[in-house]
Amino acid sequence: MKKQCTIVISGGMDSSTLAYYLKDKGYELEAVSFSYGQKHAVKELECAKKIANDLKIKHTVVDMSFLGSLLNSALTNKDEAVPEGHYEAETMKRTIVPNRNTIMATIAHAIGYSKGIKNLALGVHGGDHHIYFDCRPVFIDTLQTLLQRSNGDDEIKVFAPFLYIDKTDILRLGLNLNVPYQDTWTCYAGRTDACGKCGSCSERIQSFQQCNTKDPLEYEK
Amino acid sequence: MKKQCTIVISGGMDSSTLAYYLKDKGYELEAVSFSYGQKHAVKELECAKKIANDLKIKHTVVDMSFLGSLLNSALTNKDEAVPEGHYEAETMKRTIVPNRNTIMATIAHAIGYSKGIKNLALGVHGGDHHIYFDCRPVFIDTLQTLLQRSNGDDEIKVFAPFLYIDKTDILRLGLNLNVPYQDTWTCYAGRTDACGKCGSCSERIQSFQQCNTKDPLEYEK
Repeated sequence: MKKQCTIVISGGMDSSTLAYYLKDKGYELEAVSFSYGQKHAVKELECAKKIANDLKIKHTVVDMSFLGSLLNSALTNKDEAVPEGHYEAETMKRTIVPNRNTIMATIAHAIGYSKGIKNLALGVHGGDHHIYFDCRPVFIDTLQTLLQRSNGDDEIKVFAPFLYIDKTDILRLGLNLNVPYQDTWTCYAGRTDACGKCGSCSERIQSFQQCNTKDPLEYEK
Repeated sequence: MKKQCTIVISGGMDSSTLAYYLKDKGYELEAVSFSYGQKHAVKELECAKKIANDLKIKHTVVDMSFLGSLLNSALTNKDEAVPEGHYEAETMKRTIVPNRNTIMATIAHAIGYSKGIKNLALGVHGGDHHIYFDCRPVFIDTLQTLLQRSNGDDEIKVFAPFLYIDKTDILRLGLNLNVPYQDTWTCYAGRTDACGKCGSCSERIQSFQQCNTKDPLEYEK
């Protein structure tokens, strides 16, 4: 059987690294990205496209921007600023989009499964667990069971190889795999350059510092 | 706590009956329908709107018609005829849309949950189990667990009160609840009148016969 996998890529560091990681492990990849009304959609999707082009893999962008107006989150709500500071803060809960990973995972899997691709890979990692419930091991395990039961096919697998490692560890893997991090986008603020202040930027900057490597991305002064 | 519930309504008999059933049980309802490129979308959605109007409940139609071209199913594939005959036939497997119920359920729940509505109701029933894996009790159970884990909220419940009864039983309930079945749509063929021949029509006709009641819908000669 061919080693095939559908992968959700956001244009961020984690899922981009995952794509290079799986390619290196010999998987033929089918990439899917989502526009769901997030303020940083344009930059993220540009990066996702660059990554898919560089890896020469098929890439589908699913437009779910209509969801933005239906859901109630600071990431999609135009009248609310994205909170600054580390993810630990209570306010960062406002960046939660209900069922986000579930919705993206099940649509991406449906697209791949229609072509006979059973596996689905997600870039969730250990550092996400604190406030994002849908990044925890028990969630990933239940998602796999649901996809199997949804299709009556026990061969369906959900891969999340970074589930127990953190962003710094992912960067360590990615630097060795030559991931072009200048083509990845992390900032939630949605401006031209990365803000360097939001929870997402803070984490990225810290990871590069811990790896003693210069981040190739430009930040606002 | 207010008795509230998000409900996925298709415009068909089962989910329409469910809406009247839950209203009768005292639930305040939030209805969500989907356009996913199905050939019978227009008729179905017209009926869903009539049902929501009649019940005076909020109704959101989510346009996911882009999925039609991405997925591989006779219900959405323009070059393939919808198979005729009873659901028992092997060919009816071509009417399966991968992860359909999962995708619709998780989006509908996200819309309701954004407004603080924890419960989700689905009109799946015992007669669906044979070929639709995502209508089986074990699927509904896993879906509830996934939604709970996705949001870290054990109070989330998935209601599927028709899970162990069949279409004829649903019709028995609905006739007593005065469901306006002339405003429900069942046919998969996507023409002006119901074809009376597809698996879906065959089931409907049989149910009305078993209830000794005239179906108020017009069928093709």
